[in-house]
Amino acid sequence: MEQRITIVTLGVADLKKSTAFFEKLGWKRAVQELDSITFFQCGSIAFALYPLAALAEDIGISVERSGFSGITIAHNGRSKEDVDAILAEAERAGAEIVKPAEDAFWGGYSGYFRDLDGYLWEVAWNPGFALDDAGAVTLPD
Amino acid sequence: MEQRITIVTLGVADLKKSTAFFEKLGWKRAVQELDSITFFQCGSIAFALYPLAALAEDIGISVERSGFSGITIAHNGRSKEDVDAILAEAERAGAEIVKPAEDAFWGGYSGYFRDLDGYLWEVAWNPGFALDDAGAVTLPD
Repeated sequence: MEQRITIVTLGVADLKKSTAFFEKLGWKRAVQELDSITFFQCGSIAFALYPLAALAEDIGISVERSGFSGITIAHNGRSKEDVDAILAEAERAGAEIVKPAEDAFWGGYSGYFRDLDGYLWEVAWNPGFALDDAGAVTLPD
Repeated sequence: MEQRITIVTLGVADLKKSTAFFEKLGWKRAVQELDSITFFQCGSIAFALYPLAALAEDIGISVERSGFSGITIAHNGRSKEDVDAILAEAERAGAEIVKPAEDAFWGGYSGYFRDLDGYLWEVAWNPGFALDDAGAVTLPD
């Protein structure tokens, strides 16, 4: 597993309000054609806002904040095979596979593991999000 | 507030065990002289592990996971004045100042705001962590 984070996602109560908050801070949205999720390019990583209920549903866990922080960290691989290999590697390192990788509705391939402290990591392949040689993600406009 | 994230920090139950988990994934520590916190360089950002109780104490909130996700996102400014200005900007945008900026025991200057969904953002100035023109952080070895 390369040493990098690709996306930090916050599960939010009201996507429009939360998006407006960051826009008030001067941040500019990427991937503007999507209204179900908000992306911001942040240096070599992406920062995302996604409805909390949808995020919990995507992972397949309860939305209760006591059990789920509402935050996931995504690490994107370069292929579907990468995703399977990284999830297996994480499991060998002591992680719990919460959701084995499967084809995702947004055209990619994704699974989740829970790390030792209960934090959820998405391991994904997304054909629409290019990774450069260093693993930096560049979001479409 | 520039459009970037500097550090993603996970509050952890056992720093040694959690650090070992990432080392098993092949990640190499930065700032190796510190044993109270673990840093990993991740592209243009830093990823950190810090004891959950210490992280909650640093912010000044309860350690209960129902009230605190255990994750903070840090955004580093270029000066103390930057930190004050960014916290004020966040407050104007609707954030709640949880901890006004103050000199930190590690030699920097830091405060926290809570965003609209309750997520905690640290706004900090750290003279030991260089930021390049694009705002990317480079951790010492």
